[in-house]
Amino acid sequence: MPDPRFFQPRGPFTLQAIAAACGAELGPGVDAARVIHDVAPLDEAGPEHLSFLDNPRYVPQFTATRAGACIVHPKQASAAPPGVALLLSMAPYRAYGLAARHFHPPADVVQQAGTHPTAVVDPTASLGAGCCIGPLVVVGAGVEIGAHSQIAAGCVIGAGVVLGADCRVHPQVTISHALIGSQVTIFPGARIGQDGFGFAPDPRGHVSIPQLGRVIIGDDVEIGANATIDRGAGSDTVIGSGCRLDNQVHLAHNVVLGRGCILTGQIGVSGSTRFGDFVVVGGQAGFAGHLSVGTGARIAAKSGIIGDVPAGGSYGGYPAVPVRDWHRQTVTLKQLSKKKGLPDG
Amino acid sequence: MPDPRFFQPRGPFTLQAIAAACGAELGPGVDAARVIHDVAPLDEAGPEHLSFLDNPRYVPQFTATRAGACIVHPKQASAAPPGVALLLSMAPYRAYGLAARHFHPPADVVQQAGTHPTAVVDPTASLGAGCCIGPLVVVGAGVEIGAHSQIAAGCVIGAGVVLGADCRVHPQVTISHALIGSQVTIFPGARIGQDGFGFAPDPRGHVSIPQLGRVIIGDDVEIGANATIDRGAGSDTVIGSGCRLDNQVHLAHNVVLGRGCILTGQIGVSGSTRFGDFVVVGGQAGFAGHLSVGTGARIAAKSGIIGDVPAGGSYGGYPAVPVRDWHRQTVTLKQLSKKKGLPDG
Amino acid sequence: MPDPRFFQPRGPFTLQAIAAACGAELGPGVDAARVIHDVAPLDEAGPEHLSFLDNPRYVPQFTATRAGACIVHPKQASAAPPGVALLLSMAPYRAYGLAARHFHPPADVVQQAGTHPTAVVDPTASLGAGCCIGPLVVVGAGVEIGAHSQIAAGCVIGAGVVLGADCRVHPQVTISHALIGSQVTIFPGARIGQDGFGFAPDPRGHVSIPQLGRVIIGDDVEIGANATIDRGAGSDTVIGSGCRLDNQVHLAHNVVLGRGCILTGQIGVSGSTRFGDFVVVGGQAGFAGHLSVGTGARIAAKSGIIGDVPAGGSYGGYPAVPVRDWHRQTVTLKQLSKKKGLPDG
Repeated sequence: MPDPRFFQPRGPFTLQAIAAACGAELGPGVDAARVIHDVAPLDEAGPEHLSFLDNPRYVPQFTATRAGACIVHPKQASAAPPGVALLLSMAPYRAYGLAARHFHPPADVVQQAGTHPTAVVDPTASLGAGCCIGPLVVVGAGVEIGAHSQIAAGCVIGAGVVLGADCRVHPQVTISHALIGSQVTIFPGARIGQDGFGFAPDPRGHVSIPQLGRVIIGDDVEIGANATIDRGAGSDTVIGSGCRLDNQVHLAHNVVLGRGCILTGQIGVSGSTRFGDFVVVGGQAGFAGHLSVGTGARIAAKSGIIGDVPAGGSYGGYPAVPVRDWHRQTVTLKQLSKKKGLPDG
Repeated sequence: MPDPRFFQPRGPFTLQAIAAACGAELGPGVDAARVIHDVAPLDEAGPEHLSFLDNPRYVPQFTATRAGACIVHPKQASAAPPGVALLLSMAPYRAYGLAARHFHPPADVVQQAGTHPTAVVDPTASLGAGCCIGPLVVVGAGVEIGAHSQIAAGCVIGAGVVLGADCRVHPQVTISHALIGSQVTIFPGARIGQDGFGFAPDPRGHVSIPQLGRVIIGDDVEIGANATIDRGAGSDTVIGSGCRLDNQVHLAHNVVLGRGCILTGQIGVSGSTRFGDFVVVGGQAGFAGHLSVGTGARIAAKSGIIGDVPAGGSYGGYPAVPVRDWHRQTVTLKQLSKKKGLPDG
Repeated sequence: MPDPRFFQPRGPFTLQAIAAACGAELGPGVDAARVIHDVAPLDEAGPEHLSFLDNPRYVPQFTATRAGACIVHPKQASAAPPGVALLLSMAPYRAYGLAARHFHPPADVVQQAGTHPTAVVDPTASLGAGCCIGPLVVVGAGVEIGAHSQIAAGCVIGAGVVLGADCRVHPQVTISHALIGSQVTIFPGARIGQDGFGFAPDPRGHVSIPQLGRVIIGDDVEIGANATIDRGAGSDTVIGSGCRLDNQVHLAHNVVLGRGCILTGQIGVSGSTRFGDFVVVGGQAGFAGHLSVGTGARIAAKSGIIGDVPAGGSYGGYPAVPVRDWHRQTVTLKQLSKKKGLPDG
């Protein structure tokens, strides 16, 4: 269960309140007034905890759980041990997320109200109602920060940056040349808005090209720790609403992501490549520049994408091909390398 | 066109002045006194803007542009729409870069003159004329910073570091054990001079080896956001003049780069590998240690280099081979995987 | 030899003291009272220096060295030039490391005693005897830091974090939700304890899952610059004692590393993957989630691991296979691509 040094749940809540918060349905015979104090994994939960089953590989833990209540898909309900109160959901992981957020809403990243006395805030900056500016933060001229946003210790927000409401910027983030929506979370050490990697190569000395675009970020976006998002060279770098970027992701200048894209750790996207909506990419994949990746495309981890990907396509390998072809290539090479007459064969 | 919240061009300038600044020649019939106010991409430019054509894929935008003036190669001049003033250059992208820098010289990264009152500067540090030290910067004992260099908010410059003139160090950079030339730009979050990854492996406990070298960086170098440059173990880690390193590049101890090398995002170079001059490497490539990569070599993105690369060589794949062989391997595997008798074939 | 601007050796020491410090044996005829002033590489060392030979590729430098003393394996002793005092060791690199640490113990990362006046330390934080807190550090409520630990400029230590004795946290590290042992070194810009990448994907808006675990780090661990270690989602992310993580390594939530693991630069490990003890991984390798990697396994650089790896296994490639099979695949493809009838063949 969560360590009380770091996590203090709201609540307790009744099962009825929890079901309402997460859109689940109380199972047959469940006492709606039963009280739950926190969430916990199946194998650590006790009678005061809510847990969940989503991935079928955890059915054994489910059948042995001591949790007081559990969110589960109706088709798994029969595997429940006696005594556990079931909350039924067609999307148990999503319902668990909503329930867990009911106990643990996003934590404050600034520990005091208002602006910390050690922060260096330009007098022309505009801070919305309920904004919290942490210790040793620097806020430049003309910055606008929306209501109830929090800027944690050590961040540097460059002149002219606009940040919407209810954002959480974790410690030591730097932002410049950016217009950012609301409910955006940026994790420690992310770098947003610095110059893209643009220059005219020349043996007399490469000529760096002024990078004159911006970074535009929608609402409900999360950007991982130590990620780097360069601003546009002429047009803008754009991250659509709802995107999730993991740690150490790198977006070069003029990259455009549609809505709801998911980019796992250490991905790199070269300049001017454009994603549609809800593209999902595995870790350490890399994209050449000036490509188009269609809505709903899925890219395997470590892929090297050097051509356009159609909407809905599943690609993998390097150079990336449809995943089915990639797997066939893998099997082919494995078989050929085992034939007689080849080295060590 | 550039957002005035973030970019305020110098100027306006006459075409004559622009041509002089960028080494272009005024096209036939061009009014040398015509005034231009800023630069803009072909498809966004208006009569007050300068644009350029370099990549042939943008010829359609060129023929439709409303730009007042455009830098172009003489052989493309005939595709120009009527009314646009042409500046002719054999290297249009380079000329555009110089012209754009005439309007937009490198921006200040510190907003006040001198040393910000919140900076913590050791009294033995030496700051050149016109140096600007931003808020919450820490400068250690014996540091020497050349004239007109700027150290942005939150940087930490360790004892003994030497930095030349006209450098721009963006926010939250850490530098230690380094001697750095002039006109060097370091982007946010770069880490320069920390210990290399050196230890004697031992089941009783790995013995970390003192890292007793330095980082030596030439003039006119740019180092990307969140890049990591370890100092040498015994001899030094060296980055030659004119190099360009993109975001999240990692150089291990004792790596030596010659002049003008170009390292794209997320490249990793293992210890003691040496590059000649003007080596160009694509993103996410990795190099084993103790290798030699010759002058002018070109390495494809995502390559894994485990042997020496001759001067002028073009290599790709993992283990990397000459690019021509790599492409042939790719095609071979694709063809073999489609033959009958193989799985799913 | 080490630049005195950055490195001031302790000493001088007699060969007898050095041999005792590093567990080596004085060679025949060596004057135990001879005094040595510092360490240096074979080709830079003079009569006042100690050097070492480990990698056989450096035998030529050994035979030509001017070093006053040299640590060497007994079987290499006969290649020594006349006049060099030999210290014999079965593990010369390890012995050199110990000797070099005798001259150069880990450097202070804070330059003053106690807490710098610009640090922002919560009054409920507990600092052990001899702790040094550098300029502009932020220490949150309830933090516990052990004796003689040093927290360098600009670090942000979140509420409730526990750090043991004799730790060195380099500048601009952020730590939250973590319990960390003693003698741990964390290099600049590392991010420890932020939220893992967890959400229920949903076209209506991905639902981020509260990340309710911690980061648990043992003793004698080193974590590289700009590395990112996410806290657990429910259970904890764990790094065993003695591990060495290089720059830009990324560990996702719930990853567990055993004792003494070695992870080279830019490695990524996906959620819930577990390593045994003394696993060694080359740079830029990536691991899928929920895998088991056995004790003593060795993984080649740039590998993509998508299945379990047995204890002691040597794996490489993507999808990774035993190294022997991977090499055979590489050779097979090279040979097939050279056959007649294939493109460019």
